[in-house]
Amino acid sequence: MRTAVIGLGLIGGSLLRALAAGGHAVLGYDADPATRAVARTAAARAPQGERWQVAGAVRDAVANAELVVLAVPLPAVGTVLDELAGIGYSSLLTDVTSVKGPVRDRVNERARRFGRLPGFIGGHPMAGRETSGFTASDPRLFHGCTWVLCLEPGETELTDWLTLAALITTLGARVVPATAADHDRAVAAVSHVPHLLAAALATVAAADPLALSLGAGSFRDGTRVAASPPALSAAMTGGNADAVGPTLDRVLSLLGTARAALDGADPIGELMPWFATGTAARAGWPGEPSEPVALPADPDVLLRLGRAGGWVIAVADDRGTVTAARPLIR
Amino acid sequence: MRTAVIGLGLIGGSLLRALAAGGHAVLGYDADPATRAVARTAAARAPQGERWQVAGAVRDAVANAELVVLAVPLPAVGTVLDELAGIGYSSLLTDVTSVKGPVRDRVNERARRFGRLPGFIGGHPMAGRETSGFTASDPRLFHGCTWVLCLEPGETELTDWLTLAALITTLGARVVPATAADHDRAVAAVSHVPHLLAAALATVAAADPLALSLGAGSFRDGTRVAASPPALSAAMTGGNADAVGPTLDRVLSLLGTARAALDGADPIGELMPWFATGTAARAGWPGEPSEPVALPADPDVLLRLGRAGGWVIAVADDRGTVTAARPLIR
Repeated sequence: MRTAVIGLGLIGGSLLRALAAGGHAVLGYDADPATRAVARTAAARAPQGERWQVAGAVRDAVANAELVVLAVPLPAVGTVLDELAGIGYSSLLTDVTSVKGPVRDRVNERARRFGRLPGFIGGHPMAGRETSGFTASDPRLFHGCTWVLCLEPGETELTDWLTLAALITTLGARVVPATAADHDRAVAAVSHVPHLLAAALATVAAADPLALSLGAGSFRDGTRVAASPPALSAAMTGGNADAVGPTLDRVLSLLGTARAALDGADPIGELMPWFATGTAARAGWPGEPSEPVALPADPDVLLRLGRAGGWVIAVADDRGTVTAARPLIR
Repeated sequence: MRTAVIGLGLIGGSLLRALAAGGHAVLGYDADPATRAVARTAAARAPQGERWQVAGAVRDAVANAELVVLAVPLPAVGTVLDELAGIGYSSLLTDVTSVKGPVRDRVNERARRFGRLPGFIGGHPMAGRETSGFTASDPRLFHGCTWVLCLEPGETELTDWLTLAALITTLGARVVPATAADHDRAVAAVSHVPHLLAAALATVAAADPLALSLGAGSFRDGTRVAASPPALSAAMTGGNADAVGPTLDRVLSLLGTARAALDGADPIGELMPWFATGTAARAGWPGEPSEPVALPADPDVLLRLGRAGGWVIAVADDRGTVTAARPLIR
């Protein structure tokens, strides 16, 4: 599939390499001339038949594309969308940013202004690393990775979704169907709220050097993500504020129950059942994958699969069925 | 030093082996006959000159001891204290339980009933492992480990404290002087509150299979301790309720500020400084040790060292000075 990747950081660069290695005709573009030069040099060193090209402008990159991937940070998404609308790009479009509601809003806002935009499917490969930039890119980055593809009932063209899912499963990724709202609520629970808890814990411990000197495994693990740059943590958490707020409320409500138990007549007895639910969930996580099953390629079936914690392994050539798996509860 | 270790689980068993390997005459006792048998068999296989003995009763274990170590769980501490009082044991006494205020209360309560108890120094080696029992014991367990020894102004005999500190530093441990109250507040921050946060997070995510399927590094690390048995987490957290409550309040207050920012006009801008304090603390943790310094063996000096995050490396033979280090701020 002829693909243009706009933005050649860790994710965009890795996708460029992975698609080129898979035999696809790919063109990359980055707003930074130095990044373009690095990507061109790397292409020349790639094996014959697995090379990509680097364009000098968005217009040149997307000219013949059947798919455009926006691999730029959220604040740059609107600008590139405007540019694509101006060019009149009208095929498949996806993105890789870590929050899906705000990207969907930007796309829908352009659709109102410019008329219907190309088939947009929001995406999020859960493939973050502590390194960044094109030099850290890796064509194997998506192997075994979970990759959310948004499916909005009554909005997403199913054939577009299946075309993109088919491509991404060939990279070895687990494609998870979810609405933008479901995605944003889920990442609030497993990524954004953990950043808030880790930072609060590190801040409290920081006031007591004795505590820091006694910190061992539970402090090290519980605060690991607190070492992330504050600008990144704030952008991620604050950029998903609508979903993070209610999820944090649920955590605060549970902690309020524990706080009351600590002041109660029998803290140990009251806390035992309080701990039990989380223990059961965490001890069984992550579940082993079930045997692959064939499912009809129907939006409701796909969204139910995603909500049950399942994913698409492959899409049939005729687009009528998908092969899927779910986690087994231990 | 002739030592009796009462309770031969992971910590007691490891201490028995470590002291025997250091050439001390050690006797162990465990209430469980099967554990005593295992410990006897292991002793017979130890190198000549590094063997320990296993007694059939507490009375036999402590008969000639200069030091008794209570390595039993908190609920059993009172029973063993009563037994020692009945026997009339009157030399050095320490324990290894993870909460220090409640142990101190039990000792002081016996002192009121039976008259002065032997020189008691509360202790806590921060050497937990996921394994347990004598079969998991390891004579090298305490090498590099942080070991709190309680020093209560006007209550602890300094010479007793220094004698015990001298012994423990020879096992390779960092001896941290702290009052029982300071210790309990510090472990609330770095161990007990992390267990509460991890369990609350795992419980919220457990309600959403999609969230569990998207969980990656920050969820894995932020909930790792939630897999601990609920009875252990509840005993630890609820057993230190007086210190955990106020520490949890500080965490809840910080999270309340973050919650308000999420509803504010500029969540990203407001959360940036909110994240910064925790990031600075966590990024600099753990600090590198300073060069060793000599300090006078004075209770106030020792407690100041502990409150600053420092520890004792060695005690001079004349007990007049200690060698100490502090973490360097990066």
